[in-house]
Amino acid sequence: MAKVAVIMGSISDLDVVKPAIDVLKSFDVEVEARVISAHRTPQLAHEFAVSAADNNIEVIICAAGKAAHLGGVIASFTPLPVIGLPVKSSTMDGLDSLLSMVQMPGGIPVACVAINGGLNAGLLAVQILAVKYPVLMKKLQDYKSNLAQKIQQDDAKLQKELK
Amino acid sequence: MAKVAVIMGSISDLDVVKPAIDVLKSFDVEVEARVISAHRTPQLAHEFAVSAADNNIEVIICAAGKAAHLGGVIASFTPLPVIGLPVKSSTMDGLDSLLSMVQMPGGIPVACVAINGGLNAGLLAVQILAVKYPVLMKKLQDYKSNLAQKIQQDDAKLQKELK
Amino acid sequence: MAKVAVIMGSISDLDVVKPAIDVLKSFDVEVEARVISAHRTPQLAHEFAVSAADNNIEVIICAAGKAAHLGGVIASFTPLPVIGLPVKSSTMDGLDSLLSMVQMPGGIPVACVAINGGLNAGLLAVQILAVKYPVLMKKLQDYKSNLAQKIQQDDAKLQKELK
Amino acid sequence: MAKVAVIMGSISDLDVVKPAIDVLKSFDVEVEARVISAHRTPQLAHEFAVSAADNNIEVIICAAGKAAHLGGVIASFTPLPVIGLPVKSSTMDGLDSLLSMVQMPGGIPVACVAINGGLNAGLLAVQILAVKYPVLMKKLQDYKSNLAQKIQQDDAKLQKELK
Amino acid sequence: MAKVAVIMGSISDLDVVKPAIDVLKSFDVEVEARVISAHRTPQLAHEFAVSAADNNIEVIICAAGKAAHLGGVIASFTPLPVIGLPVKSSTMDGLDSLLSMVQMPGGIPVACVAINGGLNAGLLAVQILAVKYPVLMKKLQDYKSNLAQKIQQDDAKLQKELK
Amino acid sequence: MAKVAVIMGSISDLDVVKPAIDVLKSFDVEVEARVISAHRTPQLAHEFAVSAADNNIEVIICAAGKAAHLGGVIASFTPLPVIGLPVKSSTMDGLDSLLSMVQMPGGIPVACVAINGGLNAGLLAVQILAVKYPVLMKKLQDYKSNLAQKIQQDDAKLQKELK
Amino acid sequence: MAKVAVIMGSISDLDVVKPAIDVLKSFDVEVEARVISAHRTPQLAHEFAVSAADNNIEVIICAAGKAAHLGGVIASFTPLPVIGLPVKSSTMDGLDSLLSMVQMPGGIPVACVAINGGLNAGLLAVQILAVKYPVLMKKLQDYKSNLAQKIQQDDAKLQKELK
Amino acid sequence: MAKVAVIMGSISDLDVVKPAIDVLKSFDVEVEARVISAHRTPQLAHEFAVSAADNNIEVIICAAGKAAHLGGVIASFTPLPVIGLPVKSSTMDGLDSLLSMVQMPGGIPVACVAINGGLNAGLLAVQILAVKYPVLMKKLQDYKSNLAQKIQQDDAKLQKELK
Repeated sequence: MAKVAVIMGSISDLDVVKPAIDVLKSFDVEVEARVISAHRTPQLAHEFAVSAADNNIEVIICAAGKAAHLGGVIASFTPLPVIGLPVKSSTMDGLDSLLSMVQMPGGIPVACVAINGGLNAGLLAVQILAVKYPVLMKKLQDYKSNLAQKIQQDDAKLQKELK
Repeated sequence: MAKVAVIMGSISDLDVVKPAIDVLKSFDVEVEARVISAHRTPQLAHEFAVSAADNNIEVIICAAGKAAHLGGVIASFTPLPVIGLPVKSSTMDGLDSLLSMVQMPGGIPVACVAINGGLNAGLLAVQILAVKYPVLMKKLQDYKSNLAQKIQQDDAKLQKELK
Repeated sequence: MAKVAVIMGSISDLDVVKPAIDVLKSFDVEVEARVISAHRTPQLAHEFAVSAADNNIEVIICAAGKAAHLGGVIASFTPLPVIGLPVKSSTMDGLDSLLSMVQMPGGIPVACVAINGGLNAGLLAVQILAVKYPVLMKKLQDYKSNLAQKIQQDDAKLQKELK
Repeated sequence: MAKVAVIMGSISDLDVVKPAIDVLKSFDVEVEARVISAHRTPQLAHEFAVSAADNNIEVIICAAGKAAHLGGVIASFTPLPVIGLPVKSSTMDGLDSLLSMVQMPGGIPVACVAINGGLNAGLLAVQILAVKYPVLMKKLQDYKSNLAQKIQQDDAKLQKELK
Repeated sequence: MAKVAVIMGSISDLDVVKPAIDVLKSFDVEVEARVISAHRTPQLAHEFAVSAADNNIEVIICAAGKAAHLGGVIASFTPLPVIGLPVKSSTMDGLDSLLSMVQMPGGIPVACVAINGGLNAGLLAVQILAVKYPVLMKKLQDYKSNLAQKIQQDDAKLQKELK
Repeated sequence: MAKVAVIMGSISDLDVVKPAIDVLKSFDVEVEARVISAHRTPQLAHEFAVSAADNNIEVIICAAGKAAHLGGVIASFTPLPVIGLPVKSSTMDGLDSLLSMVQMPGGIPVACVAINGGLNAGLLAVQILAVKYPVLMKKLQDYKSNLAQKIQQDDAKLQKELK
Repeated sequence: MAKVAVIMGSISDLDVVKPAIDVLKSFDVEVEARVISAHRTPQLAHEFAVSAADNNIEVIICAAGKAAHLGGVIASFTPLPVIGLPVKSSTMDGLDSLLSMVQMPGGIPVACVAINGGLNAGLLAVQILAVKYPVLMKKLQDYKSNLAQKIQQDDAKLQKELK
Repeated sequence: MAKVAVIMGSISDLDVVKPAIDVLKSFDVEVEARVISAHRTPQLAHEFAVSAADNNIEVIICAAGKAAHLGGVIASFTPLPVIGLPVKSSTMDGLDSLLSMVQMPGGIPVACVAINGGLNAGLLAVQILAVKYPVLMKKLQDYKSNLAQKIQQDDAKLQKELK
């Protein structure tokens, strides 16, 4: 069974991270959720990253705000794909988190999603795993169909409302 | 053999895209490089995306500038992982491309790398494929070792220079 | 009778879009309001755009937030004038939506109005239609006169208040 | 014959404006190109705008940089559709021009295109005129086909280069 | 007696403008407060500006938000000093208003104060008038002394609180 | 005779400041140009500011880049009107200079002009002096006429070129 | 005993400054907290800065918002290390304060921490003092250990919650 | 003798870092200059930081660009004061580096200087050391005097030029 680690730099990021955990579970992907701070527990971050592959983790999601180094720090220690989830903090409207996550130097990529884009961080992990696990690819197609249906239902509802 | 599509919205993006193609080839990943514009050849983009999986493409890199919709348009038509490579254009210093690429709505993720980050777009594709292909994981570890050695050589050179 | 399509990428954009619909109706322009997502229902967006002219639609307003591709996607499939209405989302204060809408590449214009500028999106559609329909041009002149009168009434009220 | 006015706030904007003039002429649209400054020749701007409709002008393109008021000033005096073309100046990378053009208050829209997007300003004018003149709609479809062919030729060339 | 005009583009700007009016009155400067919109009542703005000097107005304060052209429009029609007061609107956190006000082209200056800086707009007008009216210069010195005293009282209070 | 001080924080700002000096001289205003740094010669800045009025200086122009405190520092020591001229430095495209100049707290205004807007800093000083000196008001009207003529000559030239 | 001055430009900054005072006291560092405005009490700021070293102050923290000159003004008058604490004001989301604090010209550094980063301003002062006072270095290590433990407790709690 | 480590994330940052090294040496401070990348040599960064204090290093300067994590990574492993020197890269004009450096979360401060502010990074280190070493405090006062003299010489030169 596929397995994804979801790390947040602070427990206060849980609200943004929750949709990632939920969508992963809805795809029957095993989730290891952790609070690990790049700055406050650097030793732990180091150890977690270097042992992630041995612990059967295949993709790592890192959520952090402000000078959001967590994605880069984890990516520096492991060749696994790392997804960066920038969290909007109380100043700068998320721009600091986004730039700190996405502007990685050559050699160490972080796959960045939208500010506060927890759902997409989870889905992107599923898409990456689906390259290996055909069963997930099938489920992703269903997921996309459901998305489309939801929009079409909203459209139908709108037609009624505007009459 | 693993296969990645590298799409650019304009032939003028080739300089930024080239490092992605080169690094993929250096990992012995098959590359299909294409010029397809989300806005000028939307029909082609549509057809390319829906048939990508059947053509054995496993990851798609999309490079575009300004209102950089290419990643989102391709991602809307396929469940394959899509990597967004924002290209700096002549105004706004790349911020427009970055935000257009990374701020995707819930349900349709694009894995965004740094502005003009061609090398990292290619490496991220390799990391994603390495989840499935163990041989690539091994090569990635070598790649990381080489990166570290390069820095250490620069450090040694600096010590000499500053004496 | 003149006809305008008003598309929103999500039903949650309706509050921003409503003033566009209302002002169009106040000019006796027929409105087809739809929820169509560039990313979640790309097939539908494609079909809608290519058949718009045949359905007597003369101008299309596209409202979307974040990586707001809807205007560009619709414009890629039709020669009709497309008005982009960037919707402010929960991060980046609308800058992402604005840049994603307005920074279109050469060849495929989108006529962008202000962030959350629903009223102006509707009025711009009327102005475009007024090039063809003289009756609308007359009404626009009245509309402008009313705007001026409203300001002058506010000015008169201010004079009283400040006495 | 359809007629468009192309106004620039300074003769130094001509390089950015030229593609608008050229594309309009290529569609056989009559062009009246003018240097009129909202700030340095306000009287002239006023007179030009109020008499534009009587001079058979059907769409007005306004190009300006920095605190780019030209579009708003012209739009305040005429119900004709006004296209704003923000010109990048020597500071702020065009953001000042863009925001000054696009963030118009309710009641007086300006149809804004990309920073330095002269070609699209011209094309948008053609699209607006094509609502009235069917011959232009036909030409726009050819134009779009040519755009697509150009991309496909670039793609073919790329395939050769990369072999 | 010295006289200042305080113009706002919309009655909704009154809260931001009020401190300007109040501080002017506290200096016994005559105030003519008006609602005049550059875009909705351009004719009125034109007439007001050209006759301002004849109406004994010596300084004009212009408050506006979004694409805040009011300062530039008034300044284009009069050689009187024009103070721009950018008003924060519901998007872009005031940056649009600031850039639209301050980035005036060579030849037509607007003296811009801080976003929502109503008090300073009024004070700046007093400072300008004080160049001519010595009595105001004396009052300004008292005003500065009071400002300093207020800070020193706050400091004294803080010393007590922290004990 | 009217007198203006033009202070620059660094001799490297002279290119930006020169148009201010030139335009002031063209209006026969006496200019005292100085290099005084708020940060490197704070004592001098202090002394200059407190004695400015006694030295018959009536308006002070302050040009500085980056964390451009010069305007605020001078304004804190004198009730004379202070004009802030933000100078673009090698990073941040002038935004840092602009915000440091214009965002002054309540009580101590600085009259900010455009980034690198040396000409307008000088003209604004003239406009302020013209409140007191009628001869300058007359010259300003001529200046405005000349500006308008220059634009009209450019327009005439454009008509020839485009034929 | 080590001593730090904590200056705020306005009493309204106290909420942001409080964590700095508290953390300094928790390290048994003596704190002199003051309200001193660079713009409203420049004389006081001058006197405070030049006598700081003689008053046994070893580090100065300066908190201010908007055009936040306080750090630069204090640093211009003393060779003591000055820590800048940018305070978010009601517009521009703190960007103005940050740039005004951090973009100091060569020769006069200000050590800037995050927007509203009161805790870190205090901790940085402790780190600077710890270079001289070994007892503080020991306490800092304990502080870091506690930070790590707090994260690990949050992690443990998360594991329970997600079960 | 006082000792400072100057670390750069890439040898390409040397031009920006050089003024820091030079100014430190001019104050007779021992400098250990290193190329250590937070992302490419994370193990080395870790080891360097934890052993820095034992190697008699008292202050650490970290220079890096883009997602500039080096300061945060080093600070996470040592209680020594860490100075962040953001380096402008080829996109985003240094804003990404600045925000990644300065927006550190509570508990782990980095003392940030201006973008490309190498000189000030070095001077700030001297100021921090001067808290402990009185000889440096004396030299800093001379340094400040020289800065002032340099400005006054520029001023004298300007007076001659403008005559």
